[in-house]
Amino acid sequence: MNDQKDQKGFTVWFTGLSGSGKSTIAEMLFHEFQARGMKTEILDGDVVRQNLSKGLGFSKEDRDTNIMRIGFVANLLTRNGVAAICCPISPYKETRDANRALIGEFVEVYVHATVEEIAANRDPKGLYKKALAGEIKEFTGVSPDAPYEIPESPELTVDTLVETPEESLQHVLTTLVKLGYLDTDEVMVEGDRVHSGQTDLRVHDTGHVVKEG
Amino acid sequence: MNDQKDQKGFTVWFTGLSGSGKSTIAEMLFHEFQARGMKTEILDGDVVRQNLSKGLGFSKEDRDTNIMRIGFVANLLTRNGVAAICCPISPYKETRDANRALIGEFVEVYVHATVEEIAANRDPKGLYKKALAGEIKEFTGVSPDAPYEIPESPELTVDTLVETPEESLQHVLTTLVKLGYLDTDEVMVEGDRVHSGQTDLRVHDTGHVVKEG
Repeated sequence: MNDQKDQKGFTVWFTGLSGSGKSTIAEMLFHEFQARGMKTEILDGDVVRQNLSKGLGFSKEDRDTNIMRIGFVANLLTRNGVAAICCPISPYKETRDANRALIGEFVEVYVHATVEEIAANRDPKGLYKKALAGEIKEFTGVSPDAPYEIPESPELTVDTLVETPEESLQHVLTTLVKLGYLDTDEVMVEGDRVHSGQTDLRVHDTGHVVKEG
Repeated sequence: MNDQKDQKGFTVWFTGLSGSGKSTIAEMLFHEFQARGMKTEILDGDVVRQNLSKGLGFSKEDRDTNIMRIGFVANLLTRNGVAAICCPISPYKETRDANRALIGEFVEVYVHATVEEIAANRDPKGLYKKALAGEIKEFTGVSPDAPYEIPESPELTVDTLVETPEESLQHVLTTLVKLGYLDTDEVMVEGDRVHSGQTDLRVHDTGHVVKEG
């Protein structure tokens, strides 16, 4: 084990459509950090909705408030030496950039997938199909009033259309080594991992994530 | 300097009426922790209102939501080795106890002062006088619908009617030594301190705090 002393805090910020695979990679990354003896937290999904954002809706203002609250907490963790992992959809560039400016030690990872592929293969509850049929309003990437603004210069883009989660994880680890946040990009955890309890991750029998924040 | 390695996280939770002196003691404690080389954060006042609780009002439900959000963040900090200092009024016993159960390493400090004394001596904006005249609703400790429930078994009670802030600080430090969170209760910071920016603390020319969360 590569126990990192005097750990420098940082935030890995996954952004992408619902269902793109953010929580899957976040969960794997969390276990990699733990295997290195690092302090780490995931801010995602139900945990955030229950504890920080109850009462907020899906208007641009409410989404921005939610994202800035996550960033506020991630900043407190980061400046105290924690590796914070955030995986909100965070569709607006301006709000992501505000958190980058706030946190400083900020690694933005764009998790790419298309609406078409998610709707076809990773949508067991039919949310995308309903949104595409206009039955759900303010659905990111589908509804006209809920755009997803693609990051222009993220530290990393992972493409879950062509990469396995293990490949995406490897790219994240390698990026973190290049940026000086990790000593090694070796994958330390193989096989099943105990669920962190910090994401809404469920693995469907197709192998795809069926729910995420 | 007594630099504490491998710091164990804990939360010091100041509770008491608005104007009782919570932020004053919290600010002094923050500097004592910093002088010991400890990681520390204050969750108080405008910082919390702006970043976690915008949109919440003063109903019991909204107050409880605010207090539980502060507790959620304090818990994340505590379990990552930070000394978190919280100073919301937190008038309801049940909600304080819920945070005690969540956080575990929880030191409740009841900051005692009376409505009469605060209204007479520490109320430059006249908020207590307006509340006592019925002009402000849901004002803790004054309005019938906004009671303050006195802690039954806090780790410490400080009485700002008879103690100076320095004396209250000394009691807090001594309590933290007894509980095993500090190695020494010696006061390390004398004289003026740079404002943390994490409280709404203002010192009035009477020597009293004029505004706090």
